[in-house]
Amino acid sequence: MSVTGAGRPRLATKKRPGDTAREEILDASAELFTTRGYTNTSTRMIADAVGLRQASLYHHFSNKDDILDSLLSGTVDEPLAVGQGIQGVEESAVVKMYAMAWFDADQLSRSRWNLGALYLLPELRTDRFGSFRESRFTLMNLYATIAGGVVLELESDVPTGTEELPFRLVETIVNGRADSENGRGSAGLHHAPLIATAAVRVLGFPGDIDGIHDRAVRVVGDVTAGSIFEKKAGHGQ
Amino acid sequence: MSVTGAGRPRLATKKRPGDTAREEILDASAELFTTRGYTNTSTRMIADAVGLRQASLYHHFSNKDDILDSLLSGTVDEPLAVGQGIQGVEESAVVKMYAMAWFDADQLSRSRWNLGALYLLPELRTDRFGSFRESRFTLMNLYATIAGGVVLELESDVPTGTEELPFRLVETIVNGRADSENGRGSAGLHHAPLIATAAVRVLGFPGDIDGIHDRAVRVVGDVTAGSIFEKKAGHGQ
Repeated sequence: MSVTGAGRPRLATKKRPGDTAREEILDASAELFTTRGYTNTSTRMIADAVGLRQASLYHHFSNKDDILDSLLSGTVDEPLAVGQGIQGVEESAVVKMYAMAWFDADQLSRSRWNLGALYLLPELRTDRFGSFRESRFTLMNLYATIAGGVVLELESDVPTGTEELPFRLVETIVNGRADSENGRGSAGLHHAPLIATAAVRVLGFPGDIDGIHDRAVRVVGDVTAGSIFEKKAGHGQ
Repeated sequence: MSVTGAGRPRLATKKRPGDTAREEILDASAELFTTRGYTNTSTRMIADAVGLRQASLYHHFSNKDDILDSLLSGTVDEPLAVGQGIQGVEESAVVKMYAMAWFDADQLSRSRWNLGALYLLPELRTDRFGSFRESRFTLMNLYATIAGGVVLELESDVPTGTEELPFRLVETIVNGRADSENGRGSAGLHHAPLIATAAVRVLGFPGDIDGIHDRAVRVVGDVTAGSIFEKKAGHGQ
């Protein structure tokens, strides 16, 4: 197996974050899954990486699939909640689209591990991950709805299916990160404003971006200051 | 392991194409790698799927990594050769960009198996796949060069890093296919013209697409009728 050879990545080069054993397990698993591969990682390796016995690990998660589900759901739940908040705000569709793409691209590029690289695992096609797939498709539909609003607002003459592109553009952050980690610098691609700009450009927005950016940042600030996220902030105190 | 459970995909539901044992091995491997996962597939399973003994399989490939390398290189070599051909044609940069994105998106959406889903495998970070990574980065750079030409030609005011987006847009075909196979229809996304249109729009092309499309189709026709591809066509006769 190639990954156990010379190219085998060293673990835990960064300090492992997390206030609880559960959070430490999730962080170690995210590292192992993204650097060694999901199938190549055993619950034993995860337990070792955190300094737990396997029995203690099973106190938190019944199996490896549960850990993967928890990690993947984490990448979708927050943009979904923020996106639903953005959709409800009184603003133009262009600003909402930019805000959503900007927030989501930003969280995908800042997350400690590039978990989106696991979205294409064949394992995710099984029933076990049905609920995660549904959440992801809900997020995808929310993007398409807002994008459809932009096309209507601008009366853009774009090909059918263009409403699907903003979501896809945001996901390209994942590929950009993977290629950077493979030694190809593509610094520009890690910038959320670049992706958010492209998202509204493909929908036919021809105008000035600076004004849209400023309004979108305000929208995201208002939404994330709302009740959903206060609760979350409270939890961390 | 999830993929051996209820969700386990059935093999060889399509007739296996290939004039030679080598081609049949590649096709069976592509199916197994994309539906069961790379790590979950053994050379034994591949031999079984083709109806060969393992010893005979090793006559064609020394190991599983060699098969993967051959499959992945196949997804990059042709767009790279065509792209280099397109770059040498006397045409506007916008037409070249559209032609390249259109050709590449088309081949990614028509290939029998969604091999691009394997690009993010951690296994690809090892030395064994250095040559494939180099080819892929060369293709990426070719896209960025042509995209830079478009920005110059149109004197577009786009953020730094935008030249990287056409390549990324084309790669989103892979994610669109994976999601379709997971039960989410995103029909529009499989159309190469949609991606090619988006590629020139993000670079700031504001004009009529129909004329660009027709010229790009001619360019691709001229290039693929050239010597590199005559050889290939001859091989299949």
